[in-house]
Amino acid sequence: MEEELKEILAAALAAADPERVVRRFLSMENGRMSIGGESFEPRRVLALVIGKASGAMARAAGEVLGEALNDGLCVIKAGHEEPPPTFETLVASHPEPDERSARAAQKVGEFLEELGEGDLLLVLVSGGASALLADTAPGITLEDLKQLNRALLRSGAEIGEINAVRKHVSTLKGGGLVRRALPARVAALLLSDVVGDNPSSIGSGLTAPDPTTLEDVRGILKRYEIEPPQSVQDHLEKDHETPKPGDAAFEKLTNTIVGSGRLTAAAAAKKASELGYTSFLLSTYLTGDAREMAGFHAAVVKEILESGNPLPPPCALITGGEATTVVHEAGIGGPNQEFALSLALELEGIEAWAALIIDTDGTDGPTNAAGGLVTGETAALIRENDVDPHKALDENNSWEALRVGEALVSTGPTGTNVNDLRVMLVSDGTHQ
Amino acid sequence: MEEELKEILAAALAAADPERVVRRFLSMENGRMSIGGESFEPRRVLALVIGKASGAMARAAGEVLGEALNDGLCVIKAGHEEPPPTFETLVASHPEPDERSARAAQKVGEFLEELGEGDLLLVLVSGGASALLADTAPGITLEDLKQLNRALLRSGAEIGEINAVRKHVSTLKGGGLVRRALPARVAALLLSDVVGDNPSSIGSGLTAPDPTTLEDVRGILKRYEIEPPQSVQDHLEKDHETPKPGDAAFEKLTNTIVGSGRLTAAAAAKKASELGYTSFLLSTYLTGDAREMAGFHAAVVKEILESGNPLPPPCALITGGEATTVVHEAGIGGPNQEFALSLALELEGIEAWAALIIDTDGTDGPTNAAGGLVTGETAALIRENDVDPHKALDENNSWEALRVGEALVSTGPTGTNVNDLRVMLVSDGTHQ
Repeated sequence: MEEELKEILAAALAAADPERVVRRFLSMENGRMSIGGESFEPRRVLALVIGKASGAMARAAGEVLGEALNDGLCVIKAGHEEPPPTFETLVASHPEPDERSARAAQKVGEFLEELGEGDLLLVLVSGGASALLADTAPGITLEDLKQLNRALLRSGAEIGEINAVRKHVSTLKGGGLVRRALPARVAALLLSDVVGDNPSSIGSGLTAPDPTTLEDVRGILKRYEIEPPQSVQDHLEKDHETPKPGDAAFEKLTNTIVGSGRLTAAAAAKKASELGYTSFLLSTYLTGDAREMAGFHAAVVKEILESGNPLPPPCALITGGEATTVVHEAGIGGPNQEFALSLALELEGIEAWAALIIDTDGTDGPTNAAGGLVTGETAALIRENDVDPHKALDENNSWEALRVGEALVSTGPTGTNVNDLRVMLVSDGTHQ
Repeated sequence: MEEELKEILAAALAAADPERVVRRFLSMENGRMSIGGESFEPRRVLALVIGKASGAMARAAGEVLGEALNDGLCVIKAGHEEPPPTFETLVASHPEPDERSARAAQKVGEFLEELGEGDLLLVLVSGGASALLADTAPGITLEDLKQLNRALLRSGAEIGEINAVRKHVSTLKGGGLVRRALPARVAALLLSDVVGDNPSSIGSGLTAPDPTTLEDVRGILKRYEIEPPQSVQDHLEKDHETPKPGDAAFEKLTNTIVGSGRLTAAAAAKKASELGYTSFLLSTYLTGDAREMAGFHAAVVKEILESGNPLPPPCALITGGEATTVVHEAGIGGPNQEFALSLALELEGIEAWAALIIDTDGTDGPTNAAGGLVTGETAALIRENDVDPHKALDENNSWEALRVGEALVSTGPTGTNVNDLRVMLVSDGTHQ
């Protein structure tokens, strides 16, 4: 089963590979352009590529479109892969915006001005797009934006609430980009790093109408007692509302999710089915404490083994989302490694199961591991190597425990980020 | 869907009703006795009935067996339903044992002495059986037992570890009852209140071999630094081992689980299927924090609605186990009510779902409610009635919030306890 899990991992990561997903959803055949299954015959094509995976996505788009691509602008994170020279490239800062991020936002605005009737704007978005653009509304400085960001992060507001505020002080987010691209059509390919894959959340909604309102924003600032800089207060008083669902600006918009936690989990499920397991994708919304989550997954595996519910073995339980962990001690590990170690303890000594738990970006916590691959024998092997697995869990030292248990999974940086993936195989004895 | 959930609740509780489960698994037809599907032709039949549901179970067994029942002994909890007068009845204390519990254990021992070759001992076990019998090994007083219990409960040891110790200072638990019933055959009908339904855990394994060893017990006492009374130490030094799996004493034993969280969840699943929902029983092992657990269930419902995984609607997600809650504030509520309120908030405003979350004994926490029945409209209704549902959750005040949201479920005491049951219906629009 361990070899099978590695095959499943490869299939899952391939489904989120930035270059492959662009080639899957963008094609040119006999001069006909297809984006996300829809045909386009534009006067001109301009490509705007933003996010941490921009280099690979731009490269793929450039190769697919060839001569049909009239112009391209690419915003990348410092130190990441650069696109081919056919794209104008801007390097910006992430996760904290800087002068380069403000310059990138300005350049994107100028790029949008070029667009006219009959043009198509192809937008390729990947993780980090929101932070790479410091697109403040007139009168709001970069320093004001950073001050607002810090106040929001300190306030205890939820990520959806923080983004509602950000969209309302922005010129590109919350649908602003689409409105400014008019009268051109916009087709976006989105590599989603957001649980649920809602386009209004991906890149803070660069290519989607904004369901949140100015009234929501005022309520959030009041509820969390956030005192924004004067320039932000002035802006919010002026009724600068973001474009809403139903706005005419979005009539010419097509969003396609080309990679996501859900597509990755579905690819894992498909590969597991090919290997002879009945797959069930339980949920890609599973977020929360890594240990509690391991307990839930263990409870399902136990039921499968005990009663054949919800499915008899051989079967594969697949979930996605984002595990978190509360760090109490100065150990080395990450949420996916704690999940794996916890699962190994919950199901210790039980045969006929094996599980893979990884962060798809290849980096789980501050470690060189993506996660863990564990079985009913892992905990015993850890003990044989003089590490107490319970103690390692309590001390947030999952990396060391999994290392001696030969259960670490290392993929290296994958160049993509579609949250966590967990695959639990349960055998009926025919799989080893 | 709310009416359908009530039908499902009725079917689920019927599957755990003490009288019905005895009648389902015990029958006499044309003088042929059948217990759990197996035929018996004993010389004599003696019935031993122990637990909180003893009254109803004894009554049903007495009526089914009629003249065939030669003798019966029943141990009940003070204040609970009494069996018919054909049974000798002993009242004992629960959950803390007292002199009556010691007397009950002694009487059970004398009852077992009556048994001879060709006899059948029918044992009917329900929740609380373990505590109702203070069956200490020779030399260990009731006070010693209480002292040991207190030390175990304070120590932080897990329930399985506590029971391993208890079995090793007992004369009936951990399989002692079956050994002492020799040369008679033993057939037990178990109404399980234990997650997982392992006979060696039900009633501390009155009718099952004990997989735990004296060495385990010594390790547990050492690990948790438990200093048992001298009499217990003396007893444990004398190599009094409990009978193990494979012991000849168990060759004549038949255990049948007649009611349990799993059978109850299965009955709920069957009824949901009859109502047109594709049912999936995810797990009956789901224990843990009520709010984390609600989040887990909400994540599955969201996935069903968003992607049709793991099953497209209409479908029913069913789980069992035991939710717990950390009480921070002096509100009124219980784990199942907190689960229900939390789910109502997680899935607020989303149509097409309804959920029932109950403790099957009919009493969730220190309230007169069994749990909650919530939908996407529940949270709004709570707010309309001037209760803040988030605040109510934080203040452990779920009862009041569900009350004003017309979402409390009250069954009254059900006379049975097969842990918690949660049923989530997701509609495709054809169910209202």
